[in-house]
Amino acid sequence: MAPITLFFGTFVDLPRLKSGRKHELSVNRGALWVSASTGRIEGFDWSVASEAELQSLVRENGWVDVQIIRTREYQNEFFFPGFIDTHIHAPQYPNSGLFGSSTLLDWLETYTFPLESSMSSLSKARTAYNTVISRTLANGTTCASYFATIHVAATNLLAMLCHTRGQRALIGRVCMDNPSYCPEYYRDDSAQSSTSATEETISHIHTLDPESNLIKPIITPRFAPTCSPTALASLGALAASHTPPLHIQTHISENTSECALVRSLFQECPSYAAVYDAYSLLTPRTILAHAVHLTGEEKELIASRKAKVSHCPASNSALGSGIAPVRDLIDKGITVGLGTDVSGGYSPSILEAVRQACLVSRLLRHTTSKLGEGADGDEKTKGEKKDGEGREVLSVEEALYLATRGGAAVVDMNGELGGFEVGMFWDVQLIRLGQATTAAGTAAGSGSETQSVVDVFGWESWTEKVHKWVWSGDDRNVRRVWVRGALVHSIDGDGDQYSEKGLIGPAADFMRKDWMRWTMGGVGIGALALFLGGRAR
Amino acid sequence: MAPITLFFGTFVDLPRLKSGRKHELSVNRGALWVSASTGRIEGFDWSVASEAELQSLVRENGWVDVQIIRTREYQNEFFFPGFIDTHIHAPQYPNSGLFGSSTLLDWLETYTFPLESSMSSLSKARTAYNTVISRTLANGTTCASYFATIHVAATNLLAMLCHTRGQRALIGRVCMDNPSYCPEYYRDDSAQSSTSATEETISHIHTLDPESNLIKPIITPRFAPTCSPTALASLGALAASHTPPLHIQTHISENTSECALVRSLFQECPSYAAVYDAYSLLTPRTILAHAVHLTGEEKELIASRKAKVSHCPASNSALGSGIAPVRDLIDKGITVGLGTDVSGGYSPSILEAVRQACLVSRLLRHTTSKLGEGADGDEKTKGEKKDGEGREVLSVEEALYLATRGGAAVVDMNGELGGFEVGMFWDVQLIRLGQATTAAGTAAGSGSETQSVVDVFGWESWTEKVHKWVWSGDDRNVRRVWVRGALVHSIDGDGDQYSEKGLIGPAADFMRKDWMRWTMGGVGIGALALFLGGRAR
Repeated sequence: MAPITLFFGTFVDLPRLKSGRKHELSVNRGALWVSASTGRIEGFDWSVASEAELQSLVRENGWVDVQIIRTREYQNEFFFPGFIDTHIHAPQYPNSGLFGSSTLLDWLETYTFPLESSMSSLSKARTAYNTVISRTLANGTTCASYFATIHVAATNLLAMLCHTRGQRALIGRVCMDNPSYCPEYYRDDSAQSSTSATEETISHIHTLDPESNLIKPIITPRFAPTCSPTALASLGALAASHTPPLHIQTHISENTSECALVRSLFQECPSYAAVYDAYSLLTPRTILAHAVHLTGEEKELIASRKAKVSHCPASNSALGSGIAPVRDLIDKGITVGLGTDVSGGYSPSILEAVRQACLVSRLLRHTTSKLGEGADGDEKTKGEKKDGEGREVLSVEEALYLATRGGAAVVDMNGELGGFEVGMFWDVQLIRLGQATTAAGTAAGSGSETQSVVDVFGWESWTEKVHKWVWSGDDRNVRRVWVRGALVHSIDGDGDQYSEKGLIGPAADFMRKDWMRWTMGGVGIGALALFLGGRAR
Repeated sequence: MAPITLFFGTFVDLPRLKSGRKHELSVNRGALWVSASTGRIEGFDWSVASEAELQSLVRENGWVDVQIIRTREYQNEFFFPGFIDTHIHAPQYPNSGLFGSSTLLDWLETYTFPLESSMSSLSKARTAYNTVISRTLANGTTCASYFATIHVAATNLLAMLCHTRGQRALIGRVCMDNPSYCPEYYRDDSAQSSTSATEETISHIHTLDPESNLIKPIITPRFAPTCSPTALASLGALAASHTPPLHIQTHISENTSECALVRSLFQECPSYAAVYDAYSLLTPRTILAHAVHLTGEEKELIASRKAKVSHCPASNSALGSGIAPVRDLIDKGITVGLGTDVSGGYSPSILEAVRQACLVSRLLRHTTSKLGEGADGDEKTKGEKKDGEGREVLSVEEALYLATRGGAAVVDMNGELGGFEVGMFWDVQLIRLGQATTAAGTAAGSGSETQSVVDVFGWESWTEKVHKWVWSGDDRNVRRVWVRGALVHSIDGDGDQYSEKGLIGPAADFMRKDWMRWTMGGVGIGALALFLGGRAR
């Protein structure tokens, strides 16, 4: 077991925003090292620019067990923080892409409740959960806040599978006991059972991962209409009864019909957000999904409670819910991350959520919920720009920030995930765009499907390369994924030509290259015990 | 050369709409045959359900040279009409994904004109054009209406490459001579040179493909502001001087600033559409890209001239242009197809355009340009629906119709492309979703990147499978592409286990399977001369 893993190459992340500045990519080249025992970044040195300097670094630190993993410049590879999916329904994954022309409330009845209900079968649950974990890891999601179903056994299975596969996760057993808005075939027997069943899953998860290294429970009232006031109150009290208080997740203000329904059901509360607040569910550890149609008062209330918002643009477009005014939420002091909302959202990819967040923010100016002054269409003539115009637009960099550091703050791990600072966990993806396209032949032309579909032509800056990744990239670009320092996903293809027999494990192709270069270069490697292979958790 | 190619398996297309009905998938299983010499469908028989019946069909028709290509049920394979991209800028492909937070007019200046200008280098043009043809074919685009640049040589090169690679295409040399709205480094010297240079490319294309089997020229004034009135008039006259009149393509009403600019430049014309009409550019063979902000009068004018519209939703969102009210255009009698608008659009995939067309139509209700009555938000309560509500929403089926038959009508090949009727060209893609996911292992879990990322679980109807393809599919699902009966793209992967040495050519894996089965089954194959290998054009 190598006590140190050394990463050498190009590191791209989105630094914390300095006041008055706009988000920009941080691109560093150098070395960074991770403790194998804690999975945290122990240090970095961006001045390390050559093999010789890398050797010096190893010698100076007296590292004897060191594994080295590199990005290759000619393959346009870089390390990027793992994505954080702040809102995803694991049991709904098999329905991805099935929603027809429905909107929220009929979608729940037609597509969602029947599928969720079927997770009473552990074999069905296992298939769905293994698949969704595979797909999210393959798309670079290192941490996900999952809604499960009402079933204790299936919820516990999801927790176990995430733990085994090494994905960081919040796992929520769904609570829904209101007979008026839950189908008879799929609901909790009572408010009491909502709470007691939730407690069973909390206990299971705390036994599975006593130090909460990877998996944590999260209290999950589905949304206000599906929960009785008694259940809402009990769940709020349950969260508060733990030290520190438990995490909470639910939905808010996704669709105008849903908002009207909540108004009619909770007439004693001045707003949808106020319903959750009344039952102690609006806390600094609460994740509110959607927040499309909030009033100004609700935004103030949410900000004052330090509750967080999961922006799910793919879902909001797919179900015709609307466009969440993200800039306005941020301006009002609310912390925002991105969610796929599978399967209201059709894709398990947070990169797709990044794209959709950018796209819908560019349509906001044409909507009725557009941001205040200056956003009334782009009626400018050439060269003229009104003050504030376009302010609602999210840049690629901002959307990537939401997908990484934003998400980290939403899952209450601000400062621990989402960047390359000392002390942060190594929850990271290795992205490969592939070699530059040349006149003679292109990857596309070869008929090979193992290649990236991001076309780099060789003249692009790193910022341009990252933009191309965002707009054209997919799971084929995600070559390695680590969580807490451990390799949890890898793909090997034509480009990994250093893989040889005798070198076992997912990182071997990178290692072999190092080993050959170091040996053939005559470097004394006696001091380096190269430990090959992926680390077992 | 096999005179007949026989296709056996599952065929999915979007039939022409019967009055008062909604668009539905047509799913047929059976046999269909294509003439190798004409590339057209000669017949089909949906009653052919077994190998024995297939053999009878071959015997009864007295076919001796017959190539058989099958879809495999267990791999969830089906034939689907090739996609038609009604608006794409070939030279802009290298900029895919690069647009930052710009809108149309600054995007042209910052990103587009410099790149287009660089196509004066034929080596740069060759790289860009080979790549865009590869990527569009790989995504199932069998026909594209391309904007090239102002350069005659590079435009002719694009025509030659499409012809050689076998992609059906309209090729337009871009005309832009107005010094006020074209950069000095990238414009035609005069209105005269706009026309004469265009004539050079028309002549080249007519020499290259005298019968217009694959490639046709298209008159291409960039858009009203970049062309002098003299140029517009000459180009209109040029189109009309041919018999039949030449095709025309341009942009219209993409962005509100552009609309304001056109109003100020052409004050003698009552509208943007009226500008093109005044110069004889609004014809039944005209493709108008975007049409986001048309007035009611403009829609009537366009409909009365039978001009067509290319809807480019990915581009319109990316550049913040707005949402084209497609339902309203269709209701007013305008023919609509889909375009990628690379690189205002970030993706060369018409499947992505299908997705985006669906998504933005679901946001229309929240915009200021929403469709009349009933579209004022979904303020319904559970179970209630207002008349007309949701009418602006495009179903998956409708968007697929726009991508196939709609596009066929837009490129003036209505009835010749887009479906499986006798007499239509075999411009088709073979889609593979892959084997159903099982509890034990999933494609996603294997770390293989050669697999589809569409997860089928085995319980889905064909409609559901096609929906999953639309929402999750990509180029990995496009296993074979034919244009005019000839194979123009193929990928071979883990699933194609019938490929063996001695069987040469892209279709060999399918052939081998047939050959083995027929031989081993003891069927007299003496009458069948199996011609292996892809057909040379």
